Amino acid sequence: MGKYGFLGIGIMGRAMATNLLKAGFDVTVWNRSAEKCAPLVDLGAKNGKTAADVVAHCDITFAMVSDPGAANTLCFGKNGVLEGISAGKSYVDVSTVDAGTAILIHDAIKKKGGRYLEAPVSGSKKPAEDGALVFLCSGDESLYKDAGEALDVMGKKSFYFPQIGQGAQMKLVINMIMGTMMTAFAEGLSLGDKIGLKKTAILDVIAQGAINSPMFQLKGPSMTVGDFTTAFPLKHMQKDMRLALLLGDSYCQPLYTSSAANNAYITARKNGCSDEDFSAVIKNIEK
Amino acid sequence: MGKYGFLGIGIMGRAMATNLLKAGFDVTVWNRSAEKCAPLVDLGAKNGKTAADVVAHCDITFAMVSDPGAANTLCFGKNGVLEGISAGKSYVDVSTVDAGTAILIHDAIKKKGGRYLEAPVSGSKKPAEDGALVFLCSGDESLYKDAGEALDVMGKKSFYFPQIGQGAQMKLVINMIMGTMMTAFAEGLSLGDKIGLKKTAILDVIAQGAINSPMFQLKGPSMTVGDFTTAFPLKHMQKDMRLALLLGDSYCQPLYTSSAANNAYITARKNGCSDEDFSAVIKNIEK
Amino acid sequence: MGKYGFLGIGIMGRAMATNLLKAGFDVTVWNRSAEKCAPLVDLGAKNGKTAADVVAHCDITFAMVSDPGAANTLCFGKNGVLEGISAGKSYVDVSTVDAGTAILIHDAIKKKGGRYLEAPVSGSKKPAEDGALVFLCSGDESLYKDAGEALDVMGKKSFYFPQIGQGAQMKLVINMIMGTMMTAFAEGLSLGDKIGLKKTAILDVIAQGAINSPMFQLKGPSMTVGDFTTAFPLKHMQKDMRLALLLGDSYCQPLYTSSAANNAYITARKNGCSDEDFSAVIKNIEK
Amino acid sequence: MGKYGFLGIGIMGRAMATNLLKAGFDVTVWNRSAEKCAPLVDLGAKNGKTAADVVAHCDITFAMVSDPGAANTLCFGKNGVLEGISAGKSYVDVSTVDAGTAILIHDAIKKKGGRYLEAPVSGSKKPAEDGALVFLCSGDESLYKDAGEALDVMGKKSFYFPQIGQGAQMKLVINMIMGTMMTAFAEGLSLGDKIGLKKTAILDVIAQGAINSPMFQLKGPSMTVGDFTTAFPLKHMQKDMRLALLLGDSYCQPLYTSSAANNAYITARKNGCSDEDFSAVIKNIEK
Repeated sequence: MGKYGFLGIGIMGRAMATNLLKAGFDVTVWNRSAEKCAPLVDLGAKNGKTAADVVAHCDITFAMVSDPGAANTLCFGKNGVLEGISAGKSYVDVSTVDAGTAILIHDAIKKKGGRYLEAPVSGSKKPAEDGALVFLCSGDESLYKDAGEALDVMGKKSFYFPQIGQGAQMKLVINMIMGTMMTAFAEGLSLGDKIGLKKTAILDVIAQGAINSPMFQLKGPSMTVGDFTTAFPLKHMQKDMRLALLLGDSYCQPLYTSSAANNAYITARKNGCSDEDFSAVIKNIEK
Repeated sequence: MGKYGFLGIGIMGRAMATNLLKAGFDVTVWNRSAEKCAPLVDLGAKNGKTAADVVAHCDITFAMVSDPGAANTLCFGKNGVLEGISAGKSYVDVSTVDAGTAILIHDAIKKKGGRYLEAPVSGSKKPAEDGALVFLCSGDESLYKDAGEALDVMGKKSFYFPQIGQGAQMKLVINMIMGTMMTAFAEGLSLGDKIGLKKTAILDVIAQGAINSPMFQLKGPSMTVGDFTTAFPLKHMQKDMRLALLLGDSYCQPLYTSSAANNAYITARKNGCSDEDFSAVIKNIEK
Repeated sequence: MGKYGFLGIGIMGRAMATNLLKAGFDVTVWNRSAEKCAPLVDLGAKNGKTAADVVAHCDITFAMVSDPGAANTLCFGKNGVLEGISAGKSYVDVSTVDAGTAILIHDAIKKKGGRYLEAPVSGSKKPAEDGALVFLCSGDESLYKDAGEALDVMGKKSFYFPQIGQGAQMKLVINMIMGTMMTAFAEGLSLGDKIGLKKTAILDVIAQGAINSPMFQLKGPSMTVGDFTTAFPLKHMQKDMRLALLLGDSYCQPLYTSSAANNAYITARKNGCSDEDFSAVIKNIEK
Repeated sequence: MGKYGFLGIGIMGRAMATNLLKAGFDVTVWNRSAEKCAPLVDLGAKNGKTAADVVAHCDITFAMVSDPGAANTLCFGKNGVLEGISAGKSYVDVSTVDAGTAILIHDAIKKKGGRYLEAPVSGSKKPAEDGALVFLCSGDESLYKDAGEALDVMGKKSFYFPQIGQGAQMKLVINMIMGTMMTAFAEGLSLGDKIGLKKTAILDVIAQGAINSPMFQLKGPSMTVGDFTTAFPLKHMQKDMRLALLLGDSYCQPLYTSSAANNAYITARKNGCSDEDFSAVIKNIEK
């Protein structure tokens, strides 16, 4: 089974590392603010001194940080991943980064003889706790196989795409559809409400038909009562839509409908909803 | 149990009447082109001479015709429903008509002492055959109850909304969401395709996540192979979107994202896809 | 020169009839509320008893009313135009009506032997006072020529289109472009403002370049100070955009950009700007 | 009057430097491909050996290159502007660059004691030849004054904005409005055409009214005959719209209508119109 490292113990990282520990994996953890590692140590994790140290002592090291900037710092910074990597060592970054960042990290690690897999996840806190994440992987295919045991513990499904960067791009495509669906849903609920159809009735009808989706059933009830407790921050959804639209631009792919939805999220940011759940996009649509 | 009439034996009507017959109901059928009734007569149906005749001899008569114009003709035309209706007789129009038409028919029938229920269905050929339609009803509430036994045979679920016309409006709201979702889906598949992600891979990822829906699973595989065999004609989807947008306009409800999607369907009509399935909206987006 | 009638003495009608009188035309006026005719009588106008009476006694009668409903009532109502029309009499409706209404009135008048010209105007109060309107005519071509002398007094330019209804349609096309241009302008001013460019500076730069237009120079300064005194009510602009979009829909012409602009006007209506000038569309864009 | 340098002798640069020479200015020119300088030498220009050389020997040096990349190379490259600049020397870059590039160049030149003005132009070949450009300046205000004499020869108007980068941003705002206006115009012409109104008739009506603009009068006639000879390449317009939209995104400014127009240009690029005039956006709208 070997030794596993886990860098970045935030909400997601903690849940994922917890699942590895519960499954009996040998896990060494590290976090920028060391105190966050304590609950995992209580579960049997070892404490790594630095990211470089963890990478150097483990066979496969996972990382889950918040954005491309943090992923870059973690890899290229002092005592970072790059200082610990060498032939025989592997690095699986499950953070969401853009394709450019994934390629940069990939090339640097390969140059030092290590193996790299970009493996952004689809799913937020609950699926992370339930071991029900989906991994969108690209990079070293042999590593994809070797990391499979751990990925299977943390997630319900993994995908492998041949080109490095495609994991990130797949996630953008999915999130662009998600963001536009949510806006369509919000427009429908708002229109219905205006003409005297109760939102709960609309949800009931949707639940019976072809357009039903886990997202509508999960978010619909909270949206009808104005509860926008953050699962996926609206500003992150808008960032993903912006990046997906730029991707479309660079490939000459017009995206009229998604562009309109993107503007709905920008409007929501303007109105102070950046840190609320992305379903808060309905607030400015219906008001 | 009483006597049931069924007017309009097209693809949908035939499937629905068949289910009534199989469930042992006493059904009298009528269709403008009489020969279409033959398969139902083989299953035990009686042949009505005219629509008026069917309405006059049955307790509850259902009708399923193609559009508001046909619904008006069936009701107000020579030998039409209105000539047969009277106190004690009931009429359930399961066609999709606009709220104005529903109100018109409702008022005319009520004036003659009859009862009227507008009950447009959500679902197309397959659900009709499987008795899995959803009925969106408004009008006479006592008739909604009395027709329940038959509705339960033909569908899996019925909803009742207090204002006449709300059945039609609910359907528009649902179809607007559906049409916009389909466009979002088409934009995502097209973008993915441009950047080298296989459509089948995108479908696989969607199937694992929060945005999955029966529609994506049903339409996705045929869309990836360019099969647009008509289940719900694109021109009807575009008509529903137009009507929903006009409804929004009359209630001062901006609908930016749905408007963009509506233009995608108009573009598809311009390119000759009116009679294909509405999923053909992807053709002009991806080409 | 002959005798001229003028029906409908509102802001526009008064200015137009005044110009006819000042040019020495023999004018008989009529208005639903008779007191509005007094200032024109002071200028030498005769008072007509009813619309029918004016039409019957004049060679060419002009009408300027507020909308298709009023145009219909004026024509088909009691003591209306149709009661006065006969061979040798002519009716020029300079109100803005939809093509359907124009065709209806055209057919009714033609049937009674009269001549009809639809001649909606481009231009509002100021051009009306200055005799600088533009007439978009269709209908009887001989009447277009015979009415030319009067049109030349009230306007600076007239156009004739062969198909009845095309005057109305041309006006919709022009107003759709106008409404979308105004939204583009509002988005540009709002973006500039956000990044620290003064609106007055943007107007100065625009004034020097290829995109300058009388509309920007007229509306820009008042928009920068938040003055939305009504010249052309926002609700009428939105109505024209809706009608133009529906026209596009019926001809399979996608209109993505104009649809987005239309939603901006709907948003403005939702926010209480219906009766302000259409340039108030900027309020919700910039706020 | 002093000594002037001019770097970058393309279509625009040649016309601008020619105007300086004709006005009697002492001009030293340099171009990457030296042979392009010959016509200017014939008019009396001196030949510079390198960009650094020109900057070192002239009081004020202008530069007109194609994009931010070229502007960076010209400034920071071997024998570039930075090698020649020193206290008492001034650099006016009239190329169109993004605000970030302008700030970078500004800071580098200031550090070496020189003065810098970003001065992107509004206007293409014809205004350049006619000395009718508009300069959108920001940077060193004293240089703005000192360069005034030369700017007045090359252009009809100059503007100064206090923050470095605002010249570039003003240009983006103007071009965003321009691009959206052109799309509105194209949608109007296309709709008119579908309903039987000749494009030339629409142009005639526009010419009489509030929405008329030099752009419509210049581009309209060629658009009606399908002539899209490049004055401003479509791909550059789309790039400017993309940058303006990103600017809006970063300032939480929703831009629904401009986003739709941007997609029209992306569609045009997809259909092979990148190098045609930006008015070619009508091709895919009307087809």
